[in-house]
This record gives sequence, C-alpha cells and structure tokens, in this order.
Amino acid sequence: MAVRVDVEFVARDAARAVKRGDVIVMVDVLRCSSSMVSALANGAEAVVPTETLKEAYGLRELHSDFLLVGERRVRKPSGFDLGNSPLEFVREVVERRTMIMTTTSGTAALVRCRGAEYVLVGGFLNAGAVAEKAAEIVGRNGVNVSFVLAGEKGLFSLEDFLCAGAIASKFLAGRFDFSDKALAAVLSFERVKSALGDYVRKSRHARHLVELGFERDVEFSCKLDHFGVVPVFRDGWVTVM
Amino acid sequence: MAVRVDVEFVARDAARAVKRGDVIVMVDVLRCSSSMVSALANGAEAVVPTETLKEAYGLRELHSDFLLVGERRVRKPSGFDLGNSPLEFVREVVERRTMIMTTTSGTAALVRCRGAEYVLVGGFLNAGAVAEKAAEIVGRNGVNVSFVLAGEKGLFSLEDFLCAGAIASKFLAGRFDFSDKALAAVLSFERVKSALGDYVRKSRHARHLVELGFERDVEFSCKLDHFGVVPVFRDGWVTVM
Repeated sequence: MAVRVDVEFVARDAARAVKRGDVIVMVDVLRCSSSMVSALANGAEAVVPTETLKEAYGLRELHSDFLLVGERRVRKPSGFDLGNSPLEFVREVVERRTMIMTTTSGTAALVRCRGAEYVLVGGFLNAGAVAEKAAEIVGRNGVNVSFVLAGEKGLFSLEDFLCAGAIASKFLAGRFDFSDKALAAVLSFERVKSALGDYVRKSRHARHLVELGFERDVEFSCKLDHFGVVPVFRDGWVTVM
Repeated sequence: MAVRVDVEFVARDAARAVKRGDVIVMVDVLRCSSSMVSALANGAEAVVPTETLKEAYGLRELHSDFLLVGERRVRKPSGFDLGNSPLEFVREVVERRTMIMTTTSGTAALVRCRGAEYVLVGGFLNAGAVAEKAAEIVGRNGVNVSFVLAGEKGLFSLEDFLCAGAIASKFLAGRFDFSDKALAAVLSFERVKSALGDYVRKSRHARHLVELGFERDVEFSCKLDHFGVVPVFRDGWVTVM
C-alpha cells in the first residue's frame, strides 16, 4: 500500500498526526526549525525545547552549562545567551553545547508532538535530508508521514506550507499517496521554487521580521538544502539522527 | 487602505468571515457551485438552498412547482427531480424555474454564511465574473473579501482551494492585501492553471466522483470563465446579481 502524506496546517492539530501514528515532520521555517538545524549542523550536541519561559529558566537553574536560547515577540528574553536567529548559532558558540530553547511557536509545536515515535524537525535548510530520512523510516516501519506546521501564533503560515511542499515534493517519485493538503503544498512550492525568498518574504511573519530588522534571518532560512542534518525530537531532547 | 483578501479553508469557520463583515465568496467546485452557476446561467430564476433533506422535502410540499434538486452521498435522493450534476441543469429543464437544492457540503456552507451582507457563489465556471463583482462591492462599501471553502464533509479540498486561487488571482493587479492562505491559494492555482482539470482530478473528491461515473461533471466544472453569472445568496434565496 502507498504511504500516505498528510499535513496539519496548524500546531493545535498536531494531536491528530500523533493519533494516526505517523512519522511527524514539524516545520517552523521562521525561525525555530532553521535555528535548530543550524545549531546541530554547527556541532551543538542537543536541544531541549520548552513551551514556557518558566520551564526554560528552571532548567537553566539545574544546568548552568546549558545555553539558554530563543525568543518572545521575536526578541531575546532577558538573561538568554542567544535569541532565535539561525545566524547566531555559529560553530564557535554552539559546538558541543546543549541548548535549552523556547520560542513562541516552534518549540510549543514540538511539545505537542510528544507521543509520536518519530518527530523530525524540517526547514528549507535541510529539506532534502529530512525527506530522505522520513522516506527511510516509513519504508522500514510501514507507517505514514504527516507535516505539522507550527505557524505563527497558531495561524496558517505561508512559509511553513511552502516548506512542507518542498519536503513532500521529494516524495513525488515514490509510492506516496498525497492528501489534498499535501498536494496543495507541493503545487505552491513548485510555483515558487526558483524564487523562494521572494515569495517567503510576502508572508505575514516574514514581513514582520523584516520590519524588526531580521531580514538576513529570512534570507538565510530560505537556503534550500544548505545543511544535511536531521534533528529528531525524542524523550524531550532534540538530537541529530 | 488596501482591501484584505482572506480564506477560510473549511466551512465550519464561515462564522469568522461573517463576523469580520467581509464580502463572502462561497466555493464548492464539486459540485454545488458549478450546478448553481449552470442553473442560473441557463435561466433558472432562483435557488433555495437547504441544509437538510427534511427541509427540502418540506419546502416542496409547500411549493409543488419548484424543482427539487441535489444529492446525498453523491446520488440523487428519492423523489428528487434532478441530482447535482451541473450538466443536468440545461435550459430546457431549468428556465424560469425555482429550485430547492440540498447538497452534502455546498448548501450547508451557504447556510453557515447567513448574516453576511454579500454572499457570492463562485466556481471555476464563473471565476472572472465573481472576481469582478466582488471587487466592485468592496470598492463601493470599503469592506474586505473572504473565501469560504465548502470542502467535502468539512475537510480541506484541493479543488476549492485552487478555485479560491483562480478568483483571487484576478485581484493581483489591484490594491489588495493577501493573507498567507490567500497567497498560498493563488500560488497553487498559478502552478496548475494551464492544466487545471488534470490537477483537480488528483483531489480526493474528484477521484471519488470519477469512480462513481461522474467524470464529465469534474471536467465541466473545471471550465474557467465558462459563464458570466454571479449567484448571490440573500434572505434564503440565491439569485443572479
């Protein structure tokens, strides 16, 4: 039987994908996925995502050697080592370090995926690698794939939709059965792939980031297949698979 | 200020568009929109949409001269004059007639739009005409536009998404501010517009209709700008604006 490819457009529906027993690809292009992928590609050991600031501060109390990273309202919270710009997660800063990360949408979406056996973190930066890994897992385990889009504040986000399309488009050659939502994402991605950054910049969240001076984050997050790492979230930790 | 263009992906969220005070374009390509547009283009006087079979039968008791049309599980219900194939609504049958129509998704979606001042019915068949009419209304009244996708059984449907994109793409030249969902719809439509029928046929609902022998309905419903009528739902009646 063909492998089913589906998409949950908003993080609050993550539980549906968990219930289906699917391999989940959590997508938050701007900027949580892109930051995690960058950090792990640059040698970070692990990321511990938390939903709340309080949990993040609490974990830091217990582990003073962990870096505290993330954002609230786009900005770095007080006392944090790093914000949520993928460009901050350079090798000199993150190599061999573990990070406690809390962001408005992405880390909360990950936490909602708890209970799924495989939760991969996908962005444009690692689209090809994630597609390959997901295909390998579904082939081995006879399960289906669902994208969970983190979105901004629980709303549908164009950049995450396009990214699900970018990853799912790699499945087109195989025996995959696309849901209407997955087909829609693939079609939109195919329309824009030659000028990805231009279209992502039209999204609500990208425009907001550009207004606040984070234009380079948007540009960098749109680099397709820039990294080969696949972050996996399991038992509370994100590590490279 | 620019006119906002938004999309509600599923009919159960129609109330949001009503609450915003938007001009609503209800889209149910397969097949309610296409049937209504065909009927009115071929001279039908009005359509009375009902949510339930019971209401439909009740209205027919009161108005024996009205045609009773629609479907349940794709098929024509017992005692109905016509089913829900746009190709059935030919001039010889529908001219100067009023129809009571009940379908699984489309008429129910319309009923959910009650309370909005303007509710237009859009399909591929009348995409250009609907866009023009919607632009005229928003220009005159200073309001925004929302698409409400009927979908199949409350699920996101590719064909309705593409049709919202087809209509919204006509706004690209004007002073419109597209939400992420509206942008996504336009991009998907632009990808497939040169082979619309081929892509609509990949949707879940189209495949189901083809299996049941309604391939010609799918093909006909994909004829872009075939008709120039704009059905408007007001006070329980759908008539040509």
